[in-house]
Amino acid sequence: MAEEIILLDYWASMFGMRTRIALEEKGVKYEYREEDLSNKSPLLLEMNPIHKKIPVLIHKGKPICESIIQVQYIDELWPDSNPILPSDPYQRAQARFWADYIDKKTYVPCKALWSETGEKQEAAKMEFIEVLKTLDSELGDKSFFGGNKFGLVDIAFIGFYSWFRTYEEVANLTIVAKFPKLISWAQRCLKRESVAKALPDSDKVLKSVSDHRKIVLGIDEFHV
Amino acid sequence: MAEEIILLDYWASMFGMRTRIALEEKGVKYEYREEDLSNKSPLLLEMNPIHKKIPVLIHKGKPICESIIQVQYIDELWPDSNPILPSDPYQRAQARFWADYIDKKTYVPCKALWSETGEKQEAAKMEFIEVLKTLDSELGDKSFFGGNKFGLVDIAFIGFYSWFRTYEEVANLTIVAKFPKLISWAQRCLKRESVAKALPDSDKVLKSVSDHRKIVLGIDEFHV
Repeated sequence: MAEEIILLDYWASMFGMRTRIALEEKGVKYEYREEDLSNKSPLLLEMNPIHKKIPVLIHKGKPICESIIQVQYIDELWPDSNPILPSDPYQRAQARFWADYIDKKTYVPCKALWSETGEKQEAAKMEFIEVLKTLDSELGDKSFFGGNKFGLVDIAFIGFYSWFRTYEEVANLTIVAKFPKLISWAQRCLKRESVAKALPDSDKVLKSVSDHRKIVLGIDEFHV
Repeated sequence: MAEEIILLDYWASMFGMRTRIALEEKGVKYEYREEDLSNKSPLLLEMNPIHKKIPVLIHKGKPICESIIQVQYIDELWPDSNPILPSDPYQRAQARFWADYIDKKTYVPCKALWSETGEKQEAAKMEFIEVLKTLDSELGDKSFFGGNKFGLVDIAFIGFYSWFRTYEEVANLTIVAKFPKLISWAQRCLKRESVAKALPDSDKVLKSVSDHRKIVLGIDEFHV
């Protein structure tokens, strides 16, 4: 492969989805390697010794870690096709702010939504609903978070959409009915080939989470 | 003021120090406004409604929030004098990775070091020592984190140095004796006017924390 790009990833990771979308937006070919997160590969541990997390982008043998940093790296290396960050410094700072907001505010509640029960799950619901309200308000009547063009903030958040069904079922959370603007936005994003290719089927995510909850928590709540 | 730059900040904030250093590196004049964190100004709440935190950089009436995003914005607006991010995309990704590492790993333990006691403080000590070990190893024998030139990662971490004396006294933590390379690095950074101007006196930080602990925790452990 000319560019020698390898992506260490896991199919259901909304962080990995970001990097897959960015590579696809640029038309960059890469080798996808699925990681077993319960038995991480020696390559993953070697390439990301600090966080030991996917996704890891390996370019010409050198690792780039953290999905939003990967997306920016990809955008800087291949700036010509489908720019991901705006060219204006102020707009770029705003895009970075919202991508950072998503990183800071979603991971903890979103994980608790499917891995917890009872009070912890309830607290996570409240927290995630606040995040959705904030993002819904920031999106407003725009087509994409940055305006008319698909960009960094869309890439940062769209992967979560493939988990909405799981959050609704597992945590009894109402998202689709309460946030029609966000759902329309997600459907607009899904019209892009990059997004359609990167996002897994919502049912597959739910099945996987349901299996996990059955094994780890002993809860058999779904029949999917 | 030609550029109309206002910085809403708090003197002891290691995050605010980053932005002060970046502005100084570029020779940009700005109006500094000290915030009372127990009674935040209407302007702060208006300009950073999401996080309600300092520092907030206001440029021509528009806010930029989050210190590492501010530093990148400043570097992009005034790219010619003292570049802060490397020009090579891979090196830039690495700088962003370490700045992000510092953000993710330091805030929680560093706050607990001075605001907690007992077990919580002990856990924070262990956690922060691991961070220092990792950063010490990443610095290695380089002059600065990025090599020979002062840059983003140095700016991201140097503010913490002004708190080391406080951590040592309040949490009985040994930093200076255990991490001579980091201390030499900090002293190299302090030779830059930008850093020397931005960092407060360590004794003033300790005095302020000591007063806080006396009032909030009822602990009178220092006589500074």
